[in-house]
Amino acid sequence: MTRDELIARVRAGEPRAVARAISLVENETPEAAPLIAALHPLAGRSWLVGLTGPPGAGKSTLVDRLAGVWRAAGHRVGIIAVDPSSPFTGGALLGDRVRMQQHAGDRGLFIRSMATRGHLGGLARATGDVAVVLDAAGFDRIIVETVGVGQDEVDVVRAADVSVVVLVPGTGDDVQALKAGLMEIADVYVVNKADRDGADRAVAAVEAMLALRPAEAGTWQPPVLRTTAASGEGVEALASSIEAFRAQAGPLAEARRRERAALRVRDLLVRAFLARLEGAVLAPGEFEALAGQVARREIDPHAAAAQLLARASSAG
Amino acid sequence: MTRDELIARVRAGEPRAVARAISLVENETPEAAPLIAALHPLAGRSWLVGLTGPPGAGKSTLVDRLAGVWRAAGHRVGIIAVDPSSPFTGGALLGDRVRMQQHAGDRGLFIRSMATRGHLGGLARATGDVAVVLDAAGFDRIIVETVGVGQDEVDVVRAADVSVVVLVPGTGDDVQALKAGLMEIADVYVVNKADRDGADRAVAAVEAMLALRPAEAGTWQPPVLRTTAASGEGVEALASSIEAFRAQAGPLAEARRRERAALRVRDLLVRAFLARLEGAVLAPGEFEALAGQVARREIDPHAAAAQLLARASSAG
Repeated sequence: MTRDELIARVRAGEPRAVARAISLVENETPEAAPLIAALHPLAGRSWLVGLTGPPGAGKSTLVDRLAGVWRAAGHRVGIIAVDPSSPFTGGALLGDRVRMQQHAGDRGLFIRSMATRGHLGGLARATGDVAVVLDAAGFDRIIVETVGVGQDEVDVVRAADVSVVVLVPGTGDDVQALKAGLMEIADVYVVNKADRDGADRAVAAVEAMLALRPAEAGTWQPPVLRTTAASGEGVEALASSIEAFRAQAGPLAEARRRERAALRVRDLLVRAFLARLEGAVLAPGEFEALAGQVARREIDPHAAAAQLLARASSAG
Repeated sequence: MTRDELIARVRAGEPRAVARAISLVENETPEAAPLIAALHPLAGRSWLVGLTGPPGAGKSTLVDRLAGVWRAAGHRVGIIAVDPSSPFTGGALLGDRVRMQQHAGDRGLFIRSMATRGHLGGLARATGDVAVVLDAAGFDRIIVETVGVGQDEVDVVRAADVSVVVLVPGTGDDVQALKAGLMEIADVYVVNKADRDGADRAVAAVEAMLALRPAEAGTWQPPVLRTTAASGEGVEALASSIEAFRAQAGPLAEARRRERAALRVRDLLVRAFLARLEGAVLAPGEFEALAGQVARREIDPHAAAAQLLARASSAG
């Protein structure tokens, strides 16, 4: 398949073409940059939802239910599940298959698991590129689902158009772990498994935390919703809340898209700079030798970096 | 205090000077680079232990106990607790105070909490620089304690001389969340709260997972230990295991130090490159304007990055 054929088939929403384009982008093949460049102008119509929460919060079930509500309303839904599974167990792939089976034959739904491995420091970029493919393929609601504890997951959620944090009753420790970057930035809070004991307490705890931050008049006040993903209860209200945020968040949404673009450009720039430095400016093994000198304390890391920057500049 | 005075006092292990040097480094003040440059040749004698695990695993208590064992053996111990607490609650600072009180007056122990905020993508660098300060101040055992789920935490642990993963009985979900990068790289596994039901099952689960990976003859086989941090049971065995790894890990340890140095040099280089580009090459607001064009789909991010790299090169 030529690039033009692939792009045409992605635009037509052909599942196999979409899957192939995502693989090219995710694996950072040489085809990735021209493909993204070609798809980028076609994208921009979809709405990116970042959904995160601790392990065991029932995020996958909730995402599937949310996708169901949107499918019923005529939307085309893409799901990017950032899966921390081990390469030993092949978790991501297996998860894909199990989930896809439940929706077999529905071309309005596309589920893709991404391993966190291999995206060192660039998970937000990787999910961003995959979202561009799905967007260009006509999926107008895209959900990125992550376990929300680390900074890279926070970055993913921060880069979304709307962010949802999912909690469950009786897991104070999880809230502890989550609250670093996430409790501040979520637009919608969900207490899932709301039929369990302690749901009221969990809702009250989130509301108490939200009450600590200064409320600005006219700004969005994040709601704290209850869902029971297993039965589907509360999921329509969640979908409505996300749409309500979308309706209100005009200038904020634009600022986020600009921030997301700035992050991606900076990331791509840094990668291109390092590739040029190590590929065209330095001799093979030169960087590693310098790192060895730093490790042996013969030179300090700041001086080593300054030396490399001078080399890069003079080679311009 | 002049820089030379500060350095002399850090070398003497003066707690206030150490705290001040860490603040300068952590807050990335202009003083940070020359300070690290001066302290770097003085460091290199300490052993950096990365300890990680899910929220609620009892990591802080375990770290305090481990520090106690090492203090009793005559070591000077530094603890860097990477604290995901919210800025609302001031968790990091409060945690510091509570923990420091228990060890008040012991100049052989230094505890510092670091927030994950403000180290976007650079947590490993930040903890690395703090470790250099503690190392130069004569702390020969340094423990970095993190919640181990995100990629940045994995990076921190990967950069350590020895990595310890702490699990607790009955938290299968946590193991799920952890296992991405961590189950592969830990040198020592600990099931804490081993007096609880399910400890045997947790140990067996880790051992089963380890059995999946190919054992190379002559290489370190990670042990799976049991501790009850609350009572201190098993903590001496943990300390012994860490020392045993240290004794066996010669070439591996060197490779890790080289990798750590390479990461830090690359990170500093990238920061210096971006600072020069945005400060000296581009006009004020030019980067943001380009990001805006990307957000409006007028230019694709790869093309924008290539444009910036060309500008940076021609300005060399």
